[in-house]
Amino acid sequence: MKEFCIDRFEEAAEKVKEVVLPTPLVYSEFFSRQCCNKVYLKPENIQHTGAYKIRGAYYKISTLTSEERGRGLITASAGNHAQGVAFAAQRMGAKAVIVMPTTTPLMKVNRTKSYGAQVILHGDVYDDACSEAYRLAEEHGYTFIHPFDDLGVATGQGTIAMEIIKELPTVDYILVPIGGGGLAAGVSTLARLLNPGIKVIGVEPAGASCMKESIKAGKVVSLSGAQTIADGTAVKTPGEKIFPYIKKNIDSIITVEDDELIDAFLDMVENHKMVCENSGLLTIAALSHLPFRDKKVVSILSGGNMDIITMSSMLQHGLIQRGRIFTVSVLLPDKPGELARVADIIADEQGNVVKLEHNQFVSINRNAAVELRITLESFGMEHRDRISDRLEREGYRPKMVRTNL
Amino acid sequence: MKEFCIDRFEEAAEKVKEVVLPTPLVYSEFFSRQCCNKVYLKPENIQHTGAYKIRGAYYKISTLTSEERGRGLITASAGNHAQGVAFAAQRMGAKAVIVMPTTTPLMKVNRTKSYGAQVILHGDVYDDACSEAYRLAEEHGYTFIHPFDDLGVATGQGTIAMEIIKELPTVDYILVPIGGGGLAAGVSTLARLLNPGIKVIGVEPAGASCMKESIKAGKVVSLSGAQTIADGTAVKTPGEKIFPYIKKNIDSIITVEDDELIDAFLDMVENHKMVCENSGLLTIAALSHLPFRDKKVVSILSGGNMDIITMSSMLQHGLIQRGRIFTVSVLLPDKPGELARVADIIADEQGNVVKLEHNQFVSINRNAAVELRITLESFGMEHRDRISDRLEREGYRPKMVRTNL
Repeated sequence: MKEFCIDRFEEAAEKVKEVVLPTPLVYSEFFSRQCCNKVYLKPENIQHTGAYKIRGAYYKISTLTSEERGRGLITASAGNHAQGVAFAAQRMGAKAVIVMPTTTPLMKVNRTKSYGAQVILHGDVYDDACSEAYRLAEEHGYTFIHPFDDLGVATGQGTIAMEIIKELPTVDYILVPIGGGGLAAGVSTLARLLNPGIKVIGVEPAGASCMKESIKAGKVVSLSGAQTIADGTAVKTPGEKIFPYIKKNIDSIITVEDDELIDAFLDMVENHKMVCENSGLLTIAALSHLPFRDKKVVSILSGGNMDIITMSSMLQHGLIQRGRIFTVSVLLPDKPGELARVADIIADEQGNVVKLEHNQFVSINRNAAVELRITLESFGMEHRDRISDRLEREGYRPKMVRTNL
Repeated sequence: MKEFCIDRFEEAAEKVKEVVLPTPLVYSEFFSRQCCNKVYLKPENIQHTGAYKIRGAYYKISTLTSEERGRGLITASAGNHAQGVAFAAQRMGAKAVIVMPTTTPLMKVNRTKSYGAQVILHGDVYDDACSEAYRLAEEHGYTFIHPFDDLGVATGQGTIAMEIIKELPTVDYILVPIGGGGLAAGVSTLARLLNPGIKVIGVEPAGASCMKESIKAGKVVSLSGAQTIADGTAVKTPGEKIFPYIKKNIDSIITVEDDELIDAFLDMVENHKMVCENSGLLTIAALSHLPFRDKKVVSILSGGNMDIITMSSMLQHGLIQRGRIFTVSVLLPDKPGELARVADIIADEQGNVVKLEHNQFVSINRNAAVELRITLESFGMEHRDRISDRLEREGYRPKMVRTNL
């Protein structure tokens, strides 16, 4: 049977039902209002293992001969693909070997092991782990399960499109994150096969837009680097095998900055009480870039595995971006009682002081000899401006400065 | 018709269907394994307005005469009840006045206004706002909608039990958070009516266990204070009207410490990618206190409205509790190169330095004259101990100290 055809996608959609958690669409009033479209979320962040990756892995393994399955599977990954393969292999009763860089957080190692996989820590970076995985595959006859550049894997990922269209046949646009391109190839190809009127838009981090560059060049090209907080889609070279399908079936590509991901994270938490990892937030951040309105749009939330240290730092940056935490520098006349007066003003305006820095040596002007840097919690931009205006009126010449927490 | 009887609960269950978002149970593999029961979550954190409160408000308003509704509704609240009443009134086409303390965060004021309510800011604390609401009710003939001590409101909250039992008729235990007792009275009374075999356990913050104390005393008593991070259930006096039902229908009460809520928050985020506010986490934290196993247990997640500043601080405390961030004090011989050696050791053990404090004046012993406090990110307790052991072996006498971020 031909690969990447409707029959294969149908087979995959039936197959993955054996293991996936149903992830019905969630209508988002908040994002709909924000971008003037009807926005639905496909929450693969709550999927087993916290990401869509089990779909491709499970379907791919199901297409192997029992002899191939018997020899075992291998892959290299420090991310969601590792857990996806481990989970899928366990359900299929196959042995899985996952090679991870030695720097992989213990929690990810343990989660992967918890699905019964054998974990081998090798090399400092992903590329070393990957070479080792290929070497072991050669040596032991394991089947290598590529994270994205494999039509079988991509067919499994495409099952998301089947579910979306079954549930919402009137969908106009599907937004899909792009890292290496496996998910985007599967989703866009199946959507096109089912209904040529549905458009699929890819979303990449601005700092790792290898697919956009490749499409521009008309062939797969490599970026010199990948700079983004969306680690799951920080890919320098898209897949060769899936590239022709992306070129043909993806309508356009939107790129998103890191700051927009931080905003999207806060919006998701506040309005949907849901946590997505940064790559899973690409399709949320992209909503404000859509050049149309009054359409039905589905954003695929590809994963939810955000480490709590990353989450803590996202929140802190988000608080600063939203004016909920800010630092203001004021110049105090070097005479008694001035610090108390400033403190009174801030208390009166309901600002909550988080940090104080007092610097005697900032100025040679005797009338403004001391710089005070005050870091404050506020209720938002308006409140921040009110505090700043008040300090201005009281003669303290406030200046906003960069907050370092 | 008699209040708080099965017919009323049925009527309420039909009524609230007009406005509630369906919140089907979520089976939790993680919590099931952790407490050796089958654990299901009732995610009212994703309910409209982010909490179950719209149920009671909507049903209560539906029982008023059109003349009463026409005169308008009033309540005092800085929390979920404010939004619940505003939302329900808007859907019923009634006017709502919400009195909030002047210290209420702007976001909560704006959200309440966004549902069409008139917001009056009055007084520094809740009690002042509440007196003002009663005064205005008197003056204008508004109907006061009490947050918990009202059998109509409690009947509406009880509809959660109807949904749980319809979906999972074999449930053995329902865990319900207790603040003033409205939700617990409704849920426990209806559960008992539907099936006397189902047990309902109340969960209170240890620092605000007014219901536990009242049950012990056999009558409503007031606590002198309420100290807990679970602000939504920080109540000093439970409701008089609902108290007899709680006494009769609640099987037992579990109390939970703040530290346990922090753990529960991280567990929810990591395993279910869901955000709950602290009161909504009480029934999760209580799971590890259950004195039985192999039962079907439903934890009601009552709300999800956690402010992002609170969330940021929860995460930081959580990171410290889990050993993901820790501070170790070492004594350095006061000679060149020692700082570099310690830095090398930490790098070698893959610790990530967040903060350094260097203190020359800690010791009069010339061989250990400098104290260095190092705050580190680690992968968890094991990793923390490995770093500490290594510093010990290298002769730096490490001592864990309290982390101040």
